[in-house]
Amino acid sequence: MPSNRAVAYKGPGVVEVIDTDYPDFELHDGPGVNPANIGRKVEHGAILKTVATNICGSDQHMVRGRTTAPPDLVLGHEITGEVVEVGSDVEFIKVGDLVSVPFNISCGRCRNCKERKTGVCLNVNPDRPGSAYGYVDMGGWVGGQAEYVLVPYADWNLLRFPDKDQAMEKILDLAMLSDIFPTGFHGAVTAGVGVGSTVYVAGAGPVGLAAATSALLLGASVVIVGDMNADRLAQARSFGCETVDLTQGDPADQIEQILGVPEVDCAVDAVGFEAKGHGSDSGHEAPATVLNSLMDITAAGGALGIPGLYVTGDPGGIDEAAQKGSLSLSLGTGWAKSLSFTTGQCPVMKYNRGLMMAILGDRVHIADNVNAVPISLDEAPTGYAEFDAGAARKYVLNPNGYLAAA
Amino acid sequence: MPSNRAVAYKGPGVVEVIDTDYPDFELHDGPGVNPANIGRKVEHGAILKTVATNICGSDQHMVRGRTTAPPDLVLGHEITGEVVEVGSDVEFIKVGDLVSVPFNISCGRCRNCKERKTGVCLNVNPDRPGSAYGYVDMGGWVGGQAEYVLVPYADWNLLRFPDKDQAMEKILDLAMLSDIFPTGFHGAVTAGVGVGSTVYVAGAGPVGLAAATSALLLGASVVIVGDMNADRLAQARSFGCETVDLTQGDPADQIEQILGVPEVDCAVDAVGFEAKGHGSDSGHEAPATVLNSLMDITAAGGALGIPGLYVTGDPGGIDEAAQKGSLSLSLGTGWAKSLSFTTGQCPVMKYNRGLMMAILGDRVHIADNVNAVPISLDEAPTGYAEFDAGAARKYVLNPNGYLAAA
Amino acid sequence: MPSNRAVAYKGPGVVEVIDTDYPDFELHDGPGVNPANIGRKVEHGAILKTVATNICGSDQHMVRGRTTAPPDLVLGHEITGEVVEVGSDVEFIKVGDLVSVPFNISCGRCRNCKERKTGVCLNVNPDRPGSAYGYVDMGGWVGGQAEYVLVPYADWNLLRFPDKDQAMEKILDLAMLSDIFPTGFHGAVTAGVGVGSTVYVAGAGPVGLAAATSALLLGASVVIVGDMNADRLAQARSFGCETVDLTQGDPADQIEQILGVPEVDCAVDAVGFEAKGHGSDSGHEAPATVLNSLMDITAAGGALGIPGLYVTGDPGGIDEAAQKGSLSLSLGTGWAKSLSFTTGQCPVMKYNRGLMMAILGDRVHIADNVNAVPISLDEAPTGYAEFDAGAARKYVLNPNGYLAAA
Amino acid sequence: MPSNRAVAYKGPGVVEVIDTDYPDFELHDGPGVNPANIGRKVEHGAILKTVATNICGSDQHMVRGRTTAPPDLVLGHEITGEVVEVGSDVEFIKVGDLVSVPFNISCGRCRNCKERKTGVCLNVNPDRPGSAYGYVDMGGWVGGQAEYVLVPYADWNLLRFPDKDQAMEKILDLAMLSDIFPTGFHGAVTAGVGVGSTVYVAGAGPVGLAAATSALLLGASVVIVGDMNADRLAQARSFGCETVDLTQGDPADQIEQILGVPEVDCAVDAVGFEAKGHGSDSGHEAPATVLNSLMDITAAGGALGIPGLYVTGDPGGIDEAAQKGSLSLSLGTGWAKSLSFTTGQCPVMKYNRGLMMAILGDRVHIADNVNAVPISLDEAPTGYAEFDAGAARKYVLNPNGYLAAA
Repeated sequence: MPSNRAVAYKGPGVVEVIDTDYPDFELHDGPGVNPANIGRKVEHGAILKTVATNICGSDQHMVRGRTTAPPDLVLGHEITGEVVEVGSDVEFIKVGDLVSVPFNISCGRCRNCKERKTGVCLNVNPDRPGSAYGYVDMGGWVGGQAEYVLVPYADWNLLRFPDKDQAMEKILDLAMLSDIFPTGFHGAVTAGVGVGSTVYVAGAGPVGLAAATSALLLGASVVIVGDMNADRLAQARSFGCETVDLTQGDPADQIEQILGVPEVDCAVDAVGFEAKGHGSDSGHEAPATVLNSLMDITAAGGALGIPGLYVTGDPGGIDEAAQKGSLSLSLGTGWAKSLSFTTGQCPVMKYNRGLMMAILGDRVHIADNVNAVPISLDEAPTGYAEFDAGAARKYVLNPNGYLAAA
Repeated sequence: MPSNRAVAYKGPGVVEVIDTDYPDFELHDGPGVNPANIGRKVEHGAILKTVATNICGSDQHMVRGRTTAPPDLVLGHEITGEVVEVGSDVEFIKVGDLVSVPFNISCGRCRNCKERKTGVCLNVNPDRPGSAYGYVDMGGWVGGQAEYVLVPYADWNLLRFPDKDQAMEKILDLAMLSDIFPTGFHGAVTAGVGVGSTVYVAGAGPVGLAAATSALLLGASVVIVGDMNADRLAQARSFGCETVDLTQGDPADQIEQILGVPEVDCAVDAVGFEAKGHGSDSGHEAPATVLNSLMDITAAGGALGIPGLYVTGDPGGIDEAAQKGSLSLSLGTGWAKSLSFTTGQCPVMKYNRGLMMAILGDRVHIADNVNAVPISLDEAPTGYAEFDAGAARKYVLNPNGYLAAA
Repeated sequence: MPSNRAVAYKGPGVVEVIDTDYPDFELHDGPGVNPANIGRKVEHGAILKTVATNICGSDQHMVRGRTTAPPDLVLGHEITGEVVEVGSDVEFIKVGDLVSVPFNISCGRCRNCKERKTGVCLNVNPDRPGSAYGYVDMGGWVGGQAEYVLVPYADWNLLRFPDKDQAMEKILDLAMLSDIFPTGFHGAVTAGVGVGSTVYVAGAGPVGLAAATSALLLGASVVIVGDMNADRLAQARSFGCETVDLTQGDPADQIEQILGVPEVDCAVDAVGFEAKGHGSDSGHEAPATVLNSLMDITAAGGALGIPGLYVTGDPGGIDEAAQKGSLSLSLGTGWAKSLSFTTGQCPVMKYNRGLMMAILGDRVHIADNVNAVPISLDEAPTGYAEFDAGAARKYVLNPNGYLAAA
Repeated sequence: MPSNRAVAYKGPGVVEVIDTDYPDFELHDGPGVNPANIGRKVEHGAILKTVATNICGSDQHMVRGRTTAPPDLVLGHEITGEVVEVGSDVEFIKVGDLVSVPFNISCGRCRNCKERKTGVCLNVNPDRPGSAYGYVDMGGWVGGQAEYVLVPYADWNLLRFPDKDQAMEKILDLAMLSDIFPTGFHGAVTAGVGVGSTVYVAGAGPVGLAAATSALLLGASVVIVGDMNADRLAQARSFGCETVDLTQGDPADQIEQILGVPEVDCAVDAVGFEAKGHGSDSGHEAPATVLNSLMDITAAGGALGIPGLYVTGDPGGIDEAAQKGSLSLSLGTGWAKSLSFTTGQCPVMKYNRGLMMAILGDRVHIADNVNAVPISLDEAPTGYAEFDAGAARKYVLNPNGYLAAA
């Protein structure tokens, strides 16, 4: 049996590469594994040798110590890999397949999965609907920032790339299919983006840039991205977005300069609960800032897509309300404009096949747009630190050397 | 020219029947008329002799003094009438037609109207998108709790009943098409109600009962209505709903007793910003109670329809946040469940024709379900008072004696 | 191992009850089994003891000799049963569960299943997308008009009734969930039926009656059913439909008498390729009659749902065109009215859970509406004959005596 | 009063530029005017000085003598213009506005218009739902291949360009908004095109090229255009499409060479009833060829958008069936694949604003893609002839010299 190495959370601000078990077709006890999941048989699973496994902004919430993640939790839910072993119940996925793994783990057998709501699968997380690899309170499925990882319900969960050689040519783009590209796309879709829409995306991190990319792919007329990080705004401009510098104040005025009106049709919140104030207030955590600002700048009849994470409890929140996940929202403003709001994890499987086809058809260059940068597994701690410091990069771990070959 | 009499707001807690002008095809100055609308030509309008004109819960916000409505504002936005005169630009509506008037005034010529978003028409209210008859800050279109009323853009706005005799037989039902039936229906539709859904409706006032009726019409499996008013709950049970008594505490436990699970697929907020606490806290105003409770009892992947009014400013609010229309919402709870939320005025025109057909086809009995009770124009002050006191009735004014004949 | 008895096709016009193998978790060679499916492992399957298994109109095409079905093919794709054994890959379905089986067999793992298009699953029929139990050219999955039947991909395919006692009280209704209720519902949905629609259903056989029931459940204003069989029309009237007697001629005139206009909003073809001419031409097979007539009576902007079966080859067709599945359609008429058309097998899984909930909530009585009549397995040949002769009944086989207890 | 000149149909194969009346706000008697429309008041109308007015493939059906169009019918339904006069009921459109005119004339006041089905407006054509300028049997609204044209219901019908200078810079692109761009887009949308779709477009005329452009704008992965005209296929390749040469036979084989499978997700029929056979049969009229071929090459679960015109009567049809608009369609093939079909005029108003925004945002270059070529009004007869001969051009008439300035 091969060995295995993985990126683990060790404590607030600290990640390390550790030696860990090579997976088999059972979910064993370990850091953060839900007792009800210990010993769960996974003959429907596949073991992947990771080809690419990305650092995600939502990993940072754990690493910053804003959650109850236990030490030694193996991180990583953005996984692309090559199948090296399949369980006895796997019928269609084959050893050697190159595949993308949706970050939501889902069973393909419950009511919600049948309704395409794979972000709230009922059968994988004993605590509540919805799960993900390597994440606190998500059932304990082991993370994929590792050399090898187990994927349950492989026939259902895995998206096979139709041709391996063709896929390796675009592997950095395809590596974005596990999470941020569909997540940004879901944000754009649920914001109502269509051909000719004007769109504002709050946040120029990887999800924000993926949402902006998605809005363009959906035919938006003008896409405006707002952030306080100059490098990330430059990245947004690199592929045709307009930008708003939030250190200069609320977005309405700058949007008016771009569009002639201080409003957009569609708005995406790609920031979430760790939002900070705008303008002179910038730098201070202000969890309702983004949503209140989006209600302000979205035109009557519009919609907000909210892929940015909001949590039920945030022990590190700025005040008592924030600590229990409450936000002071100007709902009256939204109501007067008949706005609608869509929250939650992106159900990746609803979108990943179409986005894969768009990548393979050379219609979109998501890796360039988010500035995907491969680094080795051992560089993961540095990658986490730089990303947390605001690097305009999407770090892609390369545990098995596939990307060098790409 | 005939005389005209109307119900007017005189000050907090006081409504009176006053003599007022008979309308012509121009919007004249008067209480609450936006200066930019004074003198507006309305050759596209029709003058109606009112057949039925209902008292609405949203009128109560003004009457309670919770808004900046000026004295002598003529009230009334739930209008059914007979056309007695048409302007020179009216081509298809004819004198003698019996019609329902959507409470949202819309032009039929702007982008939003073309997109069926008539609740946020851009051309009728100089202050902001969206308008209504007889309502504060809505442009100043004169209310319809009167003998006669002017309806602009008559060819667009008016829904003609196909046969007058047939219509008079069901006129109390048809009188609900101007507002509460479509409003409740919109709540149900945007909550995702379909065949087989389980549904919770917060509030057993007329809009709540209309939402419950709509959910049944849409094929819901079980519809549960929650309120603290025993008479209104009895009314809900009269047409097949289950009920939850909120004086006994939060709804989850009672829902579990009914359904076997403490959750529903779909939830409708038919209460809005004047919500009160549940259980031991009942009777105290607690504006976020309903929405937080609905996030709690809606299953993952579900949706909330929010026809209940939330305002941008409420001078009478219980604290500073409420006074500016901010609510402390547990958005994290909603996000974890991937909930979606739809707010705003119902775009009546999207639904009123279908609901009329359902009434005429004898498929639904909305007047019975909301307990519609005709009263004379002069009884309006009494009607307002009784409705405010919680009567399980929907008062329908009968200014011209048509309903006696019905 | 228990014995097994089943209804088999023996030749044109002949069905018989035969002794057959008790199923295990493999698809064995047999009449009509596709060579590529022989020996297929089915550890994901469940063995059901049938509770109810219905005779379907589409079985009649085979029995009449209008297909290439081989002798000894075991019939039956409308199956409700109790789980008596599960394969090693089955995780959530348990022995003792009472379940409904969608007539479409699907894998829950291919692109189409993930997109809810279970009627065209890519993995169960080697010949082409889509499959069904006990049907010619559908891969060879053994039919369920038997005491026991194997259902593959049980966790995906089976709909479990939440409470067995409650389910047995409504078992004849629930027995319609395997095919005709969802099939009729799909016809209504794809015809665009919504609250207030006027609807015409061509054909008062069980699928037509199920479509009419569905249209009412969806809130249709008026539902009109056309047929040439007086008993079946009486059945339609028994639950609130209007009817058109096609022996009196084309439907437009009779529709006008009912609605005041010769058109409906929505039309459902519940007849298919064995259509017969109307009026003086009645009784002669005229395969395009129904569709041409529906284009005639559907209002501009409307839609046609076409659950009625059209085949690619019909050796018994009335002329060369019909024999290869070509129809002479007045597409110009449809185009001038901007009609849309939806064909194909109903993807049962999209609807069966909601319809089950509506049955359990006592919102619909489909068994009464289609006149479901239980008969013993041995009475199956008589049932086939009577149904073919036009009995206004839906025959439900009762191979294991459960229905007597119901 | 200014004079007016226009392009008129004179007889089979002949168009001429004639002197004609300058419009006023009434529909006067003239060639092809429906008696019920004579004398109709149009105070809701606007008179446009044409900026661009295009020759359309559907005009060719009349010019070829395939319809009952009378001599001297003024042609033209693809109109872009500057408002020079407005009727007394026009409130929002102003003299000087630069506007696009949807080719469908609609009232903005009937049920269908309220439902966004402007292609089947009930109030503009006394013969049947739906109308267009300058077209036989469409009510008699005068065509716009002229210096001046009357547009009824101007506030509803006209799409104002937000900035005149900006618009004139892209005026050839914007000129495609009146018909072919939305028509092609409707074809793509109703074929189900989304991000990642594979698409086949039958026909590389302007509508086919617009459908292909639209499919790309909607994010299609691969767009394949089939035709028998080498120049038009080259035009399709010029903006990134793959092509199929139908003189080489049916498209399935060539599609397989491009995609690896002989099927696409979505198919658009941009040919219509004057279709010709493929391969060795090419050149012979075969009206069902395109639709049968599309059913063959569309994957199970897919959809066909059918913007190509099919008529109710075609006196010049190749046989009796074709003459009455009947086609011999392999519906069984479509049914087995669960295909859906959408026919009819594009409801332009549903799409033109979004497409305008996409043009103004520089996201699409439709004029280049269809090879729009401005010619003078006097060159119209030559333009008709060249277009009929298969020129890979979209001719744009320039009656008032605006385009020279552009």
